[in-house]
Amino acid sequence: MSNHSSLNTIEKSNSRKGSGIIDTDVHHEIRSTQDLLPYLSDHWKRYISDYGWVPERSIPFNQIRKSTKYRMDSVPEDGATPGSSFPLLKEQLLDKHNMTHAVLTGWFYEASVAKGWFEFATARASAYNDYTIEHWLEKDKRLLGSITISRDPQAAVREIERVGSHPQMVQVMMPIGDFAWGDPQYHPIFEAAHRNGLAIAMHLSASITAQGGDFLRYYVAWRSVHPQAYMTQTISLITNGVFDKFPDLKVALVEGGFEWVPFMMHRMDSAYKALRQETPWVKRMPSDYFRDNMRFTTQPWDDLTPKQFLNVIDMMGSEEMIMYASDYPHWDFDPPERTLPQQIPDSLRQKILFENARNFYKL
Amino acid sequence: MSNHSSLNTIEKSNSRKGSGIIDTDVHHEIRSTQDLLPYLSDHWKRYISDYGWVPERSIPFNQIRKSTKYRMDSVPEDGATPGSSFPLLKEQLLDKHNMTHAVLTGWFYEASVAKGWFEFATARASAYNDYTIEHWLEKDKRLLGSITISRDPQAAVREIERVGSHPQMVQVMMPIGDFAWGDPQYHPIFEAAHRNGLAIAMHLSASITAQGGDFLRYYVAWRSVHPQAYMTQTISLITNGVFDKFPDLKVALVEGGFEWVPFMMHRMDSAYKALRQETPWVKRMPSDYFRDNMRFTTQPWDDLTPKQFLNVIDMMGSEEMIMYASDYPHWDFDPPERTLPQQIPDSLRQKILFENARNFYKL
Repeated sequence: MSNHSSLNTIEKSNSRKGSGIIDTDVHHEIRSTQDLLPYLSDHWKRYISDYGWVPERSIPFNQIRKSTKYRMDSVPEDGATPGSSFPLLKEQLLDKHNMTHAVLTGWFYEASVAKGWFEFATARASAYNDYTIEHWLEKDKRLLGSITISRDPQAAVREIERVGSHPQMVQVMMPIGDFAWGDPQYHPIFEAAHRNGLAIAMHLSASITAQGGDFLRYYVAWRSVHPQAYMTQTISLITNGVFDKFPDLKVALVEGGFEWVPFMMHRMDSAYKALRQETPWVKRMPSDYFRDNMRFTTQPWDDLTPKQFLNVIDMMGSEEMIMYASDYPHWDFDPPERTLPQQIPDSLRQKILFENARNFYKL
Repeated sequence: MSNHSSLNTIEKSNSRKGSGIIDTDVHHEIRSTQDLLPYLSDHWKRYISDYGWVPERSIPFNQIRKSTKYRMDSVPEDGATPGSSFPLLKEQLLDKHNMTHAVLTGWFYEASVAKGWFEFATARASAYNDYTIEHWLEKDKRLLGSITISRDPQAAVREIERVGSHPQMVQVMMPIGDFAWGDPQYHPIFEAAHRNGLAIAMHLSASITAQGGDFLRYYVAWRSVHPQAYMTQTISLITNGVFDKFPDLKVALVEGGFEWVPFMMHRMDSAYKALRQETPWVKRMPSDYFRDNMRFTTQPWDDLTPKQFLNVIDMMGSEEMIMYASDYPHWDFDPPERTLPQQIPDSLRQKILFENARNFYKL
């Protein structure tokens, strides 16, 4: 990413010794929809201020603590939404854990998974990006941003062109909903990201359903099933030839787990060997695209033993595919020092905490 | 299963030395719906013969060979449907591979996943069971059967009572469709199976969809995604407390892969540790139910190296959870001698080819 030269300079000392911490999933928040008003046209501004529109974004479960989905200590003193205070995030995350970078992934995915009314969704996405730039990225060079888009591919492309050159914008956020991003209608989005030197991030949204829709009866079930939504996206991207069209495209699958990845690599390779005549535009083995084009993040950490964890890495056939994520300020926050088992090689730990993300984001 | 004494006697010599082969997924077929007519009431008989009703059962993809979904050599000489000839199945499967037992799983799942018109679906299920008993089970003691049911729980219970005492009927087939079998409305089915000493088998049907429904664009995608439908069922069974109600219930998840199982065990354990207050009726760690109550089958075999395969077994924490399956007569048939890697311990091989299924079916 050519416009990253200032960051490159900042990072160079850390990069050389290969140490540091990059957090690839930090949910900064708006205090309320009011925060978006300065960036909206009068029409949409009134739609919120006068008509009382509020975004739909909750998963339909009670959470496990009074602070709902947040860390108890992440509520700002003024009672605002956790994640909406830069000073608190700086203190609790960047400074406390001595982070080199934190990738803001936001929590405004409803605009991106909305099934229609794309005009308003596009306006909200733009307003949210402007808010992120002004109130977050420009306050701290350690913060990196994700571009929120709507599902109108042409509008998404325009938004990527509009804010993609900001030196701290590193990726386009394509939240995972009940549809497949590999479908050809979305390829212009990948093209625009690719052309602007941006990665793609995929993160679950509240709107996922899954096979056997009525299983969503409990939060524990939802949490256990949501990696399926990520599996589907990997299959969709590969079979629709996204990585054949854009061989350098990088996709981070954030908060979807990683222990299932070797299974999906092997399953897809076997299926592809038998059925490759069906998709002649797919030129490489599916596991090659996993290794070269996709990255997965650590949070939520599933309590693997050191041996189990090393088994998974071994079955992936690569130490480059996993990146550390904290999920701050959510209740299941994983601090960097308690995420990985203690008994793994230091070189692997440094790849996961730092180097893999540094390479992925070309920092 | 008390009425299995004759089989117990037959098996005893093999059981002692712990060798033999049990195939847990064999798709016997009807030649056409005409085969069901002798077992239907006049009304439903006319619905087929006079109204021309045919079952819907194909997955919406072209298959990879002229014989569509079947092994080329499995077409009987008279051109009938592969799998519909007992002599050919006996020759190509039971005798050729020297099988101790083969569990017939049929391919008539449309009656079980139908979303309505349960009265006719129930009649078809019963007719299919009668056909299976007369034309298959009674021809060879090595064949074991699966009871086809409809989704009307009370009708399913009646059917289990009607044919469940047949000494070769070993399980109730609950095909996997776009719904979750753990839902309370289906618990009477588990109760009836449990009471009759029958296991449960779950096998994908043609009707599955998955998260991001429109991903079902290619057969290779469908094949890669269908294990999700199995994951959902495991989550549904555990969170709805099926194994707490019926602690001895055994569920075989057939043709859904197994490499994902450790991931789901770890993911569910982690989720349960954090969220167990939500489901107080679930008394044990989810991985305990996986180990004690669920079994998984080998086909389709995903070309794991010996090390990868042993890694998976190690991460499961059990050598008892996998059972051999061939999927005869489908195109992706896995013969017993080419399913497992050569370089694994003989004792593990024997468990997978024979002992685990023997214990599961109490043979």
